[in-house]
Order: sequence, then C-alpha cells, then structure tokens
Amino acid sequence: MNRDIFMELLAQREFKAVRSILNVMNAVDIASLLSELDDRDLALAFRLIPKDKAAEVFANMGNSLQSKLIDVFTEKELKEILDDMYMDDTVDMLEDLPANVVTRILETVGSEKRAQINILLRYPEDSAGSIMTTEYVDLRRQMTVREAMEHIRRVGIHKETIYTCYVLESRRLLGIVTAKDLMTSEDNVQIQDLMETEIISIGTHADQEEVARLFAKYDLLALPVLDADQCMVGIVTVDDAMDVVVDEATEDMTLMAAVNPSEKTYFETSVFEHAKNRIPWLLVLMLTAAITGTIITRYENAFAAIPLLVSFIPMLMDTGGNCGSQSSTLIIRGIALGEIQFRDLFRAVFKEFRISLLVGTTLAVANGLRILIMYRDPSLAFVIAVSLIMTVMLSKMIGCTLPLLAKKVHLDPAIMAAPLITTIVDTCSILIYFNIATLVFHLTL
Amino acid sequence: MNRDIFMELLAQREFKAVRSILNVMNAVDIASLLSELDDRDLALAFRLIPKDKAAEVFANMGNSLQSKLIDVFTEKELKEILDDMYMDDTVDMLEDLPANVVTRILETVGSEKRAQINILLRYPEDSAGSIMTTEYVDLRRQMTVREAMEHIRRVGIHKETIYTCYVLESRRLLGIVTAKDLMTSEDNVQIQDLMETEIISIGTHADQEEVARLFAKYDLLALPVLDADQCMVGIVTVDDAMDVVVDEATEDMTLMAAVNPSEKTYFETSVFEHAKNRIPWLLVLMLTAAITGTIITRYENAFAAIPLLVSFIPMLMDTGGNCGSQSSTLIIRGIALGEIQFRDLFRAVFKEFRISLLVGTTLAVANGLRILIMYRDPSLAFVIAVSLIMTVMLSKMIGCTLPLLAKKVHLDPAIMAAPLITTIVDTCSILIYFNIATLVFHLTL
Repeated sequence: MNRDIFMELLAQREFKAVRSILNVMNAVDIASLLSELDDRDLALAFRLIPKDKAAEVFANMGNSLQSKLIDVFTEKELKEILDDMYMDDTVDMLEDLPANVVTRILETVGSEKRAQINILLRYPEDSAGSIMTTEYVDLRRQMTVREAMEHIRRVGIHKETIYTCYVLESRRLLGIVTAKDLMTSEDNVQIQDLMETEIISIGTHADQEEVARLFAKYDLLALPVLDADQCMVGIVTVDDAMDVVVDEATEDMTLMAAVNPSEKTYFETSVFEHAKNRIPWLLVLMLTAAITGTIITRYENAFAAIPLLVSFIPMLMDTGGNCGSQSSTLIIRGIALGEIQFRDLFRAVFKEFRISLLVGTTLAVANGLRILIMYRDPSLAFVIAVSLIMTVMLSKMIGCTLPLLAKKVHLDPAIMAAPLITTIVDTCSILIYFNIATLVFHLTL
Repeated sequence: MNRDIFMELLAQREFKAVRSILNVMNAVDIASLLSELDDRDLALAFRLIPKDKAAEVFANMGNSLQSKLIDVFTEKELKEILDDMYMDDTVDMLEDLPANVVTRILETVGSEKRAQINILLRYPEDSAGSIMTTEYVDLRRQMTVREAMEHIRRVGIHKETIYTCYVLESRRLLGIVTAKDLMTSEDNVQIQDLMETEIISIGTHADQEEVARLFAKYDLLALPVLDADQCMVGIVTVDDAMDVVVDEATEDMTLMAAVNPSEKTYFETSVFEHAKNRIPWLLVLMLTAAITGTIITRYENAFAAIPLLVSFIPMLMDTGGNCGSQSSTLIIRGIALGEIQFRDLFRAVFKEFRISLLVGTTLAVANGLRILIMYRDPSLAFVIAVSLIMTVMLSKMIGCTLPLLAKKVHLDPAIMAAPLITTIVDTCSILIYFNIATLVFHLTL
C-alpha cells in the first residue's frame, strides 16, 4: 500500500523516492495522505510535491492543515501557490481561515486578484456568487473558430474550465460555444454562427440549491452567473455544483433528524460540538413532549378505571409519528428538488387525505382484529381502530402542510421533519384517543 | 410566458410559429412542455421539433410519453431518433418500457447497436455498468496532438463527451488525455507524452453510489469503467453521476422515513402506490410498538399507585427516539458518503458514549429541575433524570451501532433510521423507567 511505503520512505528521508511517489499520485489522495503527518513532516513532504500539482493538493486540504502550511511558507512559496489556485478555491479557503491568516494571504496576492477576492467574499453565504469562479474563457462573436482556438491556447491553461466558452459584448452574454463545437467545426466558421443563444444562467444572489437544481435538470458542465445589470461576472463549474448537491442533502438530512448541521464530517466534529448541535432541539422537543404528558394527567380517571388503555399509548404515538414523518419527508424532499411548490398545497393535502384513508383503514383493521382476538373486547377494538384512523389522517395532514408553510415564510422546510411533527402529532393522538375512549366507555374525567 | 403562447399557437395550427418557438427552446424544457399535451397534439408537436434536437427531447421525456410516441412513430422516425440517442439514454429508457415496445425498438436499431444494448441491459440494476455509455473517444499513444484532434473532429460529434479521451492498447487503458491538454498543446506532441497515467477507474459491477463518491471526491467529468479483465468497456459521464447523487439521497431519505422508495416524483406516484409504499413499514412498526404496550401492562400496579408516572411516558419515548434518530442519521449519512466504515464501529460507539453523557446530563438536569419546581418531589425528579440519562445513552448506542451492523451484513443502513430505532428504543426506555420507578418508590409489580 502506497501509504505505508510513503511514511517509511519519508521517515528515512529518501526524498527522491518520496518525490517519485508523489509524482504519480492524484492530488486529492496526496492531500488526504498529508493530513496524517505531523507538523514538521507536513512542510517537508509538501515541498516535495511537483510544482504543477502543489496548488491543487493545497486546495484539497482541510483548513487546519492549510493554516499550518501558510505559517511555515515563505512569501515566495505562498505567492506561487496562490497564483496557481483557482479563484473559487481561494475564496472557499479564505471563508474559513482565521483572520490573521486571511490578512497575510490578501497582502500576498496581487492587487487585481485581491480586488476580485474581496468582491467574491461579499456575496451572501450559499449564494451562486459565493461559489462561482471569475476565471472563464470569453470570446468575441466576430472571431473565427481558429482565432477562438488560439485564444484558448493562450489563456486556457489558467482557466478552471475551457469546455464552455462565453461570447460577450460589453460584458453582456450573447451566447455560448462549447469546446466540442469548436473542435468539430471548420476553422473559418464565425463564432456568432456557431454559438448557442438559448442560455441557462443564474443571478449572483440566487441560492446554491437553485444552482444545483439547474445543473441536474439541464445536464450542464458550467453555469454563467449574471449580476443585477445582467452582466456576466463568473461561472459555477459542475464539480462545485456536485459538492452543493451532496452538502445540501446532508444538511437536510441532519436538520430533519433535529441536529444543527455542521460542515465537518462525523469524526472531524468534536464531542462537544456534536453535543452542542444536538442539545437545543432535544430540549425544545422534550419540553413540548412534556405538554403531551400534562394532557395525559387530565385523563387519570380514565386509565385508573381501565388501566389497559395506557398500554396502547406507545403504539398510537409511534404510528402517528411515523405517518407524519413519512408525509413530511416526501414533501420536504419534493420541495428541495423543486418538484413541489407552495401553490401545490391543496393538491398535496388532498392527495395525503386519500392516502391516509387507505393507510389508516388498513392499520385500523389489522390492529382492531389483533385486539379483538387478544382481548375479546369489541369496544376496545373499536376505540383503537377509530383512534388509529383519525391519528393517521391528522398526522399526514400536518406532515404535508407544515413543510409547505415553512417554505412560504422562508424557513427551511427541513426543520418541519419527523421530530417536530412527532411531538405535535403526539399531543393530538393522545387527545383523540382519550376522548374517544371516555365517550365509548362512558368514563368521567 | 412561452407555455401559453405555445399552446395557443399549436391549437390554432400555426405550425411555423410553433416551430420557431421550439427552435429557441432548450430540449429539457420542450420535453416538460410536451408532457402537458394530449395524445394527438403530442405527436403533432413532436414532429415540429428541429431534427437535431428531437432525440434529446425524446430522451428527456417520461416513459409513458415515450411509449405513446413510439406507438405513433413510423419505422423511419423511430430509427432516426434511436440513431441520434446516446447509448446510456437508450438503455435507461428500455429498462422501464413495456416488453412489446422494447421488442419493437430492438428490432429497429441495427444489429451492432442491438448487441451493445443487450450487453448493457444485463448489468445489475444500479451498477456502474448499467449507467455507463459505450460511446467514448479512444486514442492511440503514437498519435500526435494534430492526429488526435482530427480523429475527434471525425468521430466526436456522436460521442456523449469528448472532453476526456482514453488512450487504449488492445482494449487496455494506458492513460487519459483531456481536451484541455489537446487544445493547449503543440500539434506535434505525442499523445504518450501528454497522457496522464494516474487513472481513477471503476469496475462494471461496482455500485452506482461508489461511482458518485469518486466523482465528488476527484472532481471528475467522466469515469472509465473496466470489466473483470481490466479492459475498458465504457464511461460514466458527470451528468449521470449527478443524477445518481440526487437519486441516492432521495432514496436514503425516503427509506429513513419508513417509506419504500419510488423512482417517480411525489405527484407522479398514485395514491395507491403511495399507500402501498408506506403501509408495510407502518404495520411492522405498529406491531413492534404493541410489544412496548404489552410491557407497560406489566407495570399496571406501579401507575395505579402513582398515576403521574404515566404522564412522563411520552417525554421519555420521544426523547429516546429523537436521540437515537440523531445518531443513526449522522452515521447513515457518513456511511453513504464513505466517511464511516464498519471498522470505525468502536470509535463511533465511544464517541457517541461521550456525546450521550453530555447530552443526557444536560437534558436530565433541565427536566429534573422542571419537575422539582412543578411537583416539589425530589424522588420523582430523580427517577426522571436517571431514566433520561440512561435512555439517552442507550438510544445513542443503538442508533450508531445498528446502521453499521446493517452495512456489515449488506443491508441498506438507511432502514436502521428513526422509525425502527424509535420503536426499539421505546421498549428499552419504558423498561428502564418503570424499573427505576419501582425501585425508588418501593412499588410491587
């Protein structure tokens, strides 16, 4: 295995061998290998990376590793790395580094790059502007294919992608030419005859979720970003869009499990941070559940008369919670994928109404029969069956309504997921259950 | 808005105007527009789509629409569309069409394409082989850049991507050359001097989740797929990898909410299908919850003596369920992203142990104080606090262990999510709670 051999050779200071391993390794893998080294070996190993790969390795490292390296870099080394890094990777890094390190970096880069970085840093977090890069290939419409190819040969090496080129006129985006078009067309064809004018683009302040949706829908490799004046300011590339898709899904899942999302992986997050991310929601939900408890005390007489009633509480609560969570999850995901809008509210509620009739009846029959056989008590079977149907219907209505309402008032629909729905549904199911029970068994409160 | 104008013009049979709208629209948008038409207008409108866009529109349609069109297509029309479609889109479509339509398509395509399709259809569902395309650009290492460019100009127009080219020798993959390398290099450089030999590749039978992970990790545009003999058989392109990322996340979320995943969107799925996808898990979970109920009946004497005990059941059950769901969700997502392996089991359990100490203590103190103030009963506060800590710890242990065990025995970790964990934790929390209560209050069973 590369890793062990590498460690061994580095320990023995066999620099030539280390360098040749680094030479054939992928930048992403080098970055993860380097994260296992101690501080001294880290700087040593980093300096052995081939020059053309160093910036890419650096961009793929975690923030703490980057900080450590920046500390030991000479001005010249830092400048070389920064010059070779893509603009979006640089900005990504700056967003998470300590202020003194950021200052040092901004002092090192040239004034032109500094100005660009400063503009990019000002875009709201998770906006299209914050994840775009300002390095793209722009063409003029009067160019021929040959001229365009020469232009790309000259400037392309420093661009993150050259596969989608943008035809601009006074910063307005006129059209798009792909490298495929260029490579498969005759030399003397004019760009304006080749360019595609149906352009998919996005505003600088649009949410990154919208960016991801456009990539997935239209199978894009890059997406042009326009400012408020419709001038082109940058592009988002497909690798960044892919990261957004993964991160947004993780964030939604985390939030749906009542955990405040973290940008770090499970093991990177410390025990304290994990606890801090989990406690707030648990406290809120625990105190809400206490309300359900208080409601139960109102029915003390009921379960003093028929203690068996208590034993159905878990089943009703769990089923209600599960039904609500099924509906809310499907709706939340549908909203995230852009398949369900607020205007679909009534359509969704009507659909859930019909689904819950089917689901509720099936569960009620199954459980009613079980109780009839086990306890030979038709009234009890009836109470449980009716409570189940009502609980299922109510929880599915709540589960599909709340996420859409959250969306409407610009809250993240993902917080209206299983945990919150469960707590709300609990109270309702207990109320339904004991009211039906007191009615059927003529109990007094 | 395009849509209304389009409908109006089509109704008035203004074919020239319809055609010019279709001319400037994106293929994806045309496909979604056509889905709103009735059968007769659909065929009519489809025939007005510019020839060079028709196959792409067709590939972007739903299966029922595709079937309808295939029914009305002449042999010639069908052949034209199929010739222009990419191999992976064709196979995708065939996987979901009724058998008689598939037969007609296989009869229409040429024998060479039919052979390729048949091979692709045989790969397991959700494997790298099933989502790859067999159309890629292959180069020889002795070629010069100029020769390679000429080769691409000749064959490239029919390939899904030309941006990553593969250098082959007797079907073995020697290296990779990007279009960027070709476009920014001198004409007479040899491919073997230009090609990258650190190759990221995948086997035909690897899971598509693994494909998606490689794309996200290495920022790829295409991934070569090798067969068991290490011969190159196809590539997966980034747009398909993006779809995999989205679909896998949706599938996990759906499964985690105890719903059997469907490939259709929320509104595309019928009420019956929704019910069918939801009922099985609900039945299982309901009957499991009934066990918890049966356990409660064993403690009838306890809550007959102190009815207040019943009122804390929802709070304990919900908190246990939420804690377990927090842990299991983070672990399930970590497994899906390749960040957590089975060998991390003890590390994860130890981490959750420490987290649950912090979380449990915080919740216990908060709730203990609340009960002390509300009921002025130190014993009760003590019982609830201790039950809470133990429930939190146990549920977090269970929540982090079960998904990893599921992974180990090749079950989908996503089924070990909130609903199942909640049901299991319920039983445990009830047992813990009533045992502590009977002990502290010296109750008899």
